[in-house]
Amino acid sequence: MPDPGNTPSSGIQELVIDRVGETAHERTSDFLAVEEPLEIRLAFGDEDSRSQQSISITMRTPGDDFELAAGFLLSEGLVESREQIRSIRHCGRPSDGSLSNVVLVDLAPSAVVDVGRLKRHFYTTSSCGVCGKGSIEALQVGNPTPLPVSGNAARRHVIRSLPSRLAEAQTNFARTGGLHAAGLFDLAGSLLALREDVGRHNAVDKLIGGELLAGRVPLPDRILMLSGRVSFELVQKALIAAIPIVVAVGAPSSLAIETARAFRMTVIGFTREDRFNLYSGEERIV
Amino acid sequence: MPDPGNTPSSGIQELVIDRVGETAHERTSDFLAVEEPLEIRLAFGDEDSRSQQSISITMRTPGDDFELAAGFLLSEGLVESREQIRSIRHCGRPSDGSLSNVVLVDLAPSAVVDVGRLKRHFYTTSSCGVCGKGSIEALQVGNPTPLPVSGNAARRHVIRSLPSRLAEAQTNFARTGGLHAAGLFDLAGSLLALREDVGRHNAVDKLIGGELLAGRVPLPDRILMLSGRVSFELVQKALIAAIPIVVAVGAPSSLAIETARAFRMTVIGFTREDRFNLYSGEERIV
Repeated sequence: MPDPGNTPSSGIQELVIDRVGETAHERTSDFLAVEEPLEIRLAFGDEDSRSQQSISITMRTPGDDFELAAGFLLSEGLVESREQIRSIRHCGRPSDGSLSNVVLVDLAPSAVVDVGRLKRHFYTTSSCGVCGKGSIEALQVGNPTPLPVSGNAARRHVIRSLPSRLAEAQTNFARTGGLHAAGLFDLAGSLLALREDVGRHNAVDKLIGGELLAGRVPLPDRILMLSGRVSFELVQKALIAAIPIVVAVGAPSSLAIETARAFRMTVIGFTREDRFNLYSGEERIV
Repeated sequence: MPDPGNTPSSGIQELVIDRVGETAHERTSDFLAVEEPLEIRLAFGDEDSRSQQSISITMRTPGDDFELAAGFLLSEGLVESREQIRSIRHCGRPSDGSLSNVVLVDLAPSAVVDVGRLKRHFYTTSSCGVCGKGSIEALQVGNPTPLPVSGNAARRHVIRSLPSRLAEAQTNFARTGGLHAAGLFDLAGSLLALREDVGRHNAVDKLIGGELLAGRVPLPDRILMLSGRVSFELVQKALIAAIPIVVAVGAPSSLAIETARAFRMTVIGFTREDRFNLYSGEERIV
């Protein structure tokens, strides 16, 4: 899996801007979060009839592209295990030596790719097949099972300490103000991994994808910490990786909590040093 | 265009949660931003051979669904004018009386829908066609022309006043902390329209889509104000609506500024009452 094309990028870019005050006007240098498109392609099928298909273009911060691709495939239900990914490589290389913006994921023949499902957003129909269908059901990936309730609890003071631990480790945000972070912690509050991206979904894909590639998914004794808000899709990503506790600095959405309650996930928002809001799964907080 | 199914939703939902302090633990009610999927379908083609196709499922805050669909179609380059949209309606209606999560946009036969382009994320290929292609070119929608530089300038003090004007009008955010806002201002700083959504791209689509449906696009003498950060896609949406000035509370990305500079758009970030950062298009700030 290691490939020289996947070396971490700094994720930031320096440029000259104008800082404008009430009267003064200063030309200075500033740092921006890098945003570039990443196309993810799959190679799949039997050995004697391989197909290649582009499945996604996402705007991301370069670096950890293989982890991003692996995490995306896992949370879209396209792969279920590390073994289904035969290799990941950058496809081509720009002449300036930067990372390519295309990654090719070579799937093992055992990985069954449902091309019809890939095209679910693009089907033609003359009737309203999904009208009235419940939102969770319509979007559910695979058949996730509710999380187990026994064990794997975290202490209140550990939860309250997570935002500052994440912020300390998140070096690029301080310089750009423009990157979301996702951190993986153990139940005692030790930071195990951190990923940053202009997109909060990408930061989580990179984090979980890294664990998948290292053979460490499922993650039943881990806490996912988010620098921003909690969407439905972020709950879904944690659920597929079997992470039981999601802690955020920001607010969750209605569907995030509806899903978390249905699958017994613990979701905590507005986490500060002295308090937090517990939206679901209170049995895991002691 | 008016349809009883498009009545504004409150966008927030009340539920019971636990507020956990260092020692105390209080069961209380809280407000969450509502997040639900919206599927956008197109009906298009000649009168004697109409096709229907689902083109997008986005997670959005219900309300202003027609505006969201219209803005999405405009910024994806699928429609260029108000006249190409014959009607927009909700498709089906859930038994509980809530808004349907499917909208059907009926396009005039004059609207040419490039189904191949719709499927651009899902094509099959054996070569690396886009490798090395510049990121802006690969993602560019239509052929936007650089914005004109003459006229349409805004004063510094107007720019600095926009965040507080937006925040005053953004009632739901104060209750949920979970909604992005997009505001449309004139050059003197008067708020003309405001839309909120769990997704910042959706908030802008709702805002610009509302202007499109009212026949007011292009918008060369308007300022787009964002409660969050500035991504490439948000710059692209403003560009297609010919909005020359984008002002944000948060940080822009590298590609947002690269694009803004290429098309002569004014982009301002980290806007506060006493200062702001000017990243591009300084000639419009006087």
